[in-house]
Amino acid sequence: MEILQNDLLLRAARGERTERVPVWMMRQAGRILAEYRAVREKAGNFIKLATTPELAAEVTLQPVDLLGVDAAIIFSDILVVPEAMGLPYEMEEKRGPVFPQVVKTVADIEQLRVADPEEHLKYVLDAIKIVKQELNGRVPLIGFAGAPFTIFCYMVEGKGSKTFSVAKKALYADPQFSHALLQKITDSTIAYLKAQVAVGANLVQIFDSWAGILSPEQYRTFSLPYIKQICDALADSVPVTVFAKGAFFARQDIGQLNCSVVGLDWNMDAAESRQLIPTKTLQGNLDPCVLYADYAQIRTEVTKMLRSFGTHRYIANLGHGVYPDTDPDKVRCFIDTVKSYSSK
Amino acid sequence: MEILQNDLLLRAARGERTERVPVWMMRQAGRILAEYRAVREKAGNFIKLATTPELAAEVTLQPVDLLGVDAAIIFSDILVVPEAMGLPYEMEEKRGPVFPQVVKTVADIEQLRVADPEEHLKYVLDAIKIVKQELNGRVPLIGFAGAPFTIFCYMVEGKGSKTFSVAKKALYADPQFSHALLQKITDSTIAYLKAQVAVGANLVQIFDSWAGILSPEQYRTFSLPYIKQICDALADSVPVTVFAKGAFFARQDIGQLNCSVVGLDWNMDAAESRQLIPTKTLQGNLDPCVLYADYAQIRTEVTKMLRSFGTHRYIANLGHGVYPDTDPDKVRCFIDTVKSYSSK
Repeated sequence: MEILQNDLLLRAARGERTERVPVWMMRQAGRILAEYRAVREKAGNFIKLATTPELAAEVTLQPVDLLGVDAAIIFSDILVVPEAMGLPYEMEEKRGPVFPQVVKTVADIEQLRVADPEEHLKYVLDAIKIVKQELNGRVPLIGFAGAPFTIFCYMVEGKGSKTFSVAKKALYADPQFSHALLQKITDSTIAYLKAQVAVGANLVQIFDSWAGILSPEQYRTFSLPYIKQICDALADSVPVTVFAKGAFFARQDIGQLNCSVVGLDWNMDAAESRQLIPTKTLQGNLDPCVLYADYAQIRTEVTKMLRSFGTHRYIANLGHGVYPDTDPDKVRCFIDTVKSYSSK
Repeated sequence: MEILQNDLLLRAARGERTERVPVWMMRQAGRILAEYRAVREKAGNFIKLATTPELAAEVTLQPVDLLGVDAAIIFSDILVVPEAMGLPYEMEEKRGPVFPQVVKTVADIEQLRVADPEEHLKYVLDAIKIVKQELNGRVPLIGFAGAPFTIFCYMVEGKGSKTFSVAKKALYADPQFSHALLQKITDSTIAYLKAQVAVGANLVQIFDSWAGILSPEQYRTFSLPYIKQICDALADSVPVTVFAKGAFFARQDIGQLNCSVVGLDWNMDAAESRQLIPTKTLQGNLDPCVLYADYAQIRTEVTKMLRSFGTHRYIANLGHGVYPDTDPDKVRCFIDTVKSYSSK
């Protein structure tokens, strides 16, 4: 078994007591760091960066060295899964991801394959191998994938959207089509996450970024059952974190999944969430905008957060990805405050 | 006192028992109707349509005649208030509203005026007068304004945004600036809504469209106190509806405001909301995407909604504005199902 010098994240995920609260940040490997922007410049574009193992590994390691977080998270994108299934995407600088072709019919679904990670996502696995070697046990590595419903949104809508009304239309108008596509995404995701674990991911996080656009009933029908399959398939190997942004209404249900950690956004109250999810470790949930405030205010807000969650069964994080224009020194203030306050 | 032939909406708002559940739709006067698109074509653009009283009145009346809703809502835009304060905007076809200038400093706030509705929003008041004459007491007329926080978002950010991180940055970085601007917007909004009531609005709705991007604590600091001022200023004259999209965490607080009706989005469970807001009439909350389904499924979902809310202290609506590409016949199915089911 791998021995880690800093295993705070994994112990907190398993519900063990830790000397202090572990801390990392969603999107920590990214645009906030000048060092990241330099590597990205070298790569030419986002997709090139994500698909070149040496470069992806390099930016994965940066926040460990430069910010002092308690975990690395592999630099990648949730949309590599549809790409591996046979639906490629492009990343447009201002618009974000765009799929030139979308999935419209059952015949379109049949054209797609269940992703074979060794063949179609080898570049991610290779990046993980490099990261593990370079980390050399300093901190754990987090693997991740999008939740099937969130991936479904992009594959059907073809691009980002405030409402994803095209994707949601499919749920109401053609549930059979929707379930067939969701199952194929789920099968691909399970294979992908298992492959990440096989090459060294110590924990995996499922991002349901668009959970909040569904009604509670639709969430129970079209998202939760597929997240459940993933949790059940992975839980025996590594701790699983489920982060369903905006799904305040599903906290109780998520708390009953076969996962170790539940991620919260900043709308979700700590005490209320503890009550709804009594047996899991919670992760979150500072508003990323707090990092625009001055240092004193950041310390106040972080301390308030730590007080409300307590130091047990808790992983400090933001409630969403860090915003790209955040000052790295403010990020360090966030991280250092968690470390110093929670080790008291 | 004005006598209305159909006062279901007002009686339901006041908590009185009604023969059946009243129904209307957010954005009912708009792109779903071919008749609307024809008038808009004639006007040339959105802002011209909204600022020409005869045309605004015409499209306000269309859904009453064509869809059979139990209320008209004046056709306008929440951004007429910043415009009246001296901050004009443009409506770009694909991007939505854009403010060429934004509010950045206390000096910028001082440059703005408290809107004088008689002078700066006369076109809305004139449209209301025409609508009232044309309606001739058939159904009540709803007036509206944006909640101060939502207006603040646009005035500081300058355009729509997923995160409104520029506007939120101001809340954390400069609370004094933020409160000063929020107060000026509030003063303008109170004057504006009072003027709408003076010319015949029978109920006013406050739209806090971006409520969901705030943490519970920020919502209590930067949004609720200003909505409270508006409710307190209006409640003696007409029923007030507060619709704070995404602010599930604030339902209890909103339920204690001096308002008659609380609007809910489709994430918010009926039974839970009744428990959190026991003394108000509830309004909502069908997912607009349901109207993409077939007729049988629409009837099923609408019936389910009516069963969960009950027929007392309830106004049927969508959980957000109707999507522009919705088939008007599906809209009629929604409205007719509410009417027939709830009058049984």
